Amino acid sequence: MADSQVPHQLLRVAKEVDAKLEAVLEEQRRHWTEVDPRLSEAIDELERMTTSGGKRLRAGFCYWAWRGAALLDRGSGPQIGSESLELEEDLIIRVGAAFEFLHVFALIHDDIMDNSSTRRGATTVHVANGRRLTESNWQGEARRYGEGVAILVGDLGHVYADQMIGQVDRRARRIWDELRIELNLGQYLDMRAAAAGELDHETARQVATFKTALYTIVRPLQLGASLHHDPGPTLLAKLDRFGRPLGRAFQLRDDALGLIGDEKWLGKPVGDDLREGKPTEIVSFALDEASAAQRSVLDQIGRRDLSSTEVADIVEVLTATGALGRNEEEIQRLLQEAHQALADLPFDEVTLDAFGALADYVAARDR
Amino acid sequence: MADSQVPHQLLRVAKEVDAKLEAVLEEQRRHWTEVDPRLSEAIDELERMTTSGGKRLRAGFCYWAWRGAALLDRGSGPQIGSESLELEEDLIIRVGAAFEFLHVFALIHDDIMDNSSTRRGATTVHVANGRRLTESNWQGEARRYGEGVAILVGDLGHVYADQMIGQVDRRARRIWDELRIELNLGQYLDMRAAAAGELDHETARQVATFKTALYTIVRPLQLGASLHHDPGPTLLAKLDRFGRPLGRAFQLRDDALGLIGDEKWLGKPVGDDLREGKPTEIVSFALDEASAAQRSVLDQIGRRDLSSTEVADIVEVLTATGALGRNEEEIQRLLQEAHQALADLPFDEVTLDAFGALADYVAARDR
Repeated sequence: MADSQVPHQLLRVAKEVDAKLEAVLEEQRRHWTEVDPRLSEAIDELERMTTSGGKRLRAGFCYWAWRGAALLDRGSGPQIGSESLELEEDLIIRVGAAFEFLHVFALIHDDIMDNSSTRRGATTVHVANGRRLTESNWQGEARRYGEGVAILVGDLGHVYADQMIGQVDRRARRIWDELRIELNLGQYLDMRAAAAGELDHETARQVATFKTALYTIVRPLQLGASLHHDPGPTLLAKLDRFGRPLGRAFQLRDDALGLIGDEKWLGKPVGDDLREGKPTEIVSFALDEASAAQRSVLDQIGRRDLSSTEVADIVEVLTATGALGRNEEEIQRLLQEAHQALADLPFDEVTLDAFGALADYVAARDR
Repeated sequence: MADSQVPHQLLRVAKEVDAKLEAVLEEQRRHWTEVDPRLSEAIDELERMTTSGGKRLRAGFCYWAWRGAALLDRGSGPQIGSESLELEEDLIIRVGAAFEFLHVFALIHDDIMDNSSTRRGATTVHVANGRRLTESNWQGEARRYGEGVAILVGDLGHVYADQMIGQVDRRARRIWDELRIELNLGQYLDMRAAAAGELDHETARQVATFKTALYTIVRPLQLGASLHHDPGPTLLAKLDRFGRPLGRAFQLRDDALGLIGDEKWLGKPVGDDLREGKPTEIVSFALDEASAAQRSVLDQIGRRDLSSTEVADIVEVLTATGALGRNEEEIQRLLQEAHQALADLPFDEVTLDAFGALADYVAARDR
């Protein structure tokens, strides 16, 4: 996390959320080790993935939306720094930890589906535990065992996420349930479209909306804004108008980094999205413009055994068709749209500055 | 569910819970089909597993514990049939549906870990969706795709379970969180012990305690009793003393049925627990008594390719060592222990009758 690109408004939240995550995992490990030391292995694996990095973006968006909405009451309600808001600040950090546990759950399960061997530079749970079976000369198939452990460790993260969210009221919980349904259905659509070779623009946008715009930005904003009091439909809609284009920009940036990023920073191999045949807007842009010869190169997308040369050939076509350039233009356009929506939010200057910094970071990061 | 063995006290609850499950799934399907018809496929799969049978035991134990605890207030509080209890009855059916969604989630994920091809007589989610990829000539590996879909469909069931539990207070929610952690850690221990060949008695009992006694009986009872008002530690402890031996009896019955049951009723192949090398008390009993020759037969446990003849040889040793007989004796002893604890519960006659019928059913069922 010692990354000069990360805005201080995010670092501050991430630090507190990290401390909360550590405290929960430490307490759980102590408890379950007493019951049976073998049980703590599952918690160790969850901790390994939770503490191996992560930008804590969802916690950040949630925190600043809470702060903005709470300060709207400035005239009549409590001030930042007052005792009642300090109590609430503890709650919002718990909610931030909930988002991060949920994200680790989703990543551990995604890594099985994508058969990724590294995540945030660390060996993924299913790969590490498959190796453990082999190295320990245990019975059964390494792949099935490793994936089984990863399913359970992910499920455990899901439970801890929900435990952290436990104290919020019904209004905020509805948003929490909704975002979890969207997350799972978005991932289903992503995987299904990759298998069926549905690489059209509409599918790519639908996946980006569910998996990134709603899950990463809009819902954390709305949930945060709902924690202090009922924000009402107007504020929720304004947060949506800010978060939705920003979320799409985030996904387009992620897609581009997956093609032309630096593996050292990405923590995963470049080109894997192409091997998995993921529906991305970049590919759909290229399919719009490709010549017959270029199309035959693009038809290789989805082949699990693409070499790095073949990946480079596809990236060449994505560049030549203008798809990568169009992707970059879209990111800038969407970021501008988000900044315009930001100007319409009724929050204080400090909160708006934080959102601006988060928005630029999300759209411009190189890792 | 049209099964003459099932007590009417369970059928009555199961019917209402089934209607709630159907209503939730129908509403979700309608909503998501409008967004994108492909999304509803995930809900269809969840529905297929939710409606393919299931005894609704957890909902049953929860319901009757709620009723017993609510009627303890008979003198001062509301009567069964009164308006406030009718409102609460709607909540308790939602909670019952939560238990059943959670159970379907656990089964779908377990079936991946055990590579089971049928469940409740239906094709499992990972097998059905792996076939879909092959039959549709989609890209990628059938196994990875099928298992990926099953992970997501299970995760979706987990979310719906939480959504159904959403309205309970903090006291009941703590029990809900605890039982989900126990479920996942119990399953981890089960899988790990099977891989490592840890078939000792203590491990088998630990797994049975987590995966069955607590998850299926003790926690549903305690959660049910907590819904009306704070039951206090004495009642929670009494429910534990009833539920824990009964839960172990349930697991021992399940283990025996997995060896000598009727595949037609079981909905899964006989001997799979032996092929998976599951730690069961029966096997640990046999290991206590086995001669060197018998032990060499038992050493085959955990071989994934055991033929039905080899399974029969192992069952022969389990019989000859007296392990199956001892298992049966244990079930009877545990059932008696549960009935004694039942006599100590402060509930009305109708509730106690229901618990008695549920207990006998759980320990004596042949499917």
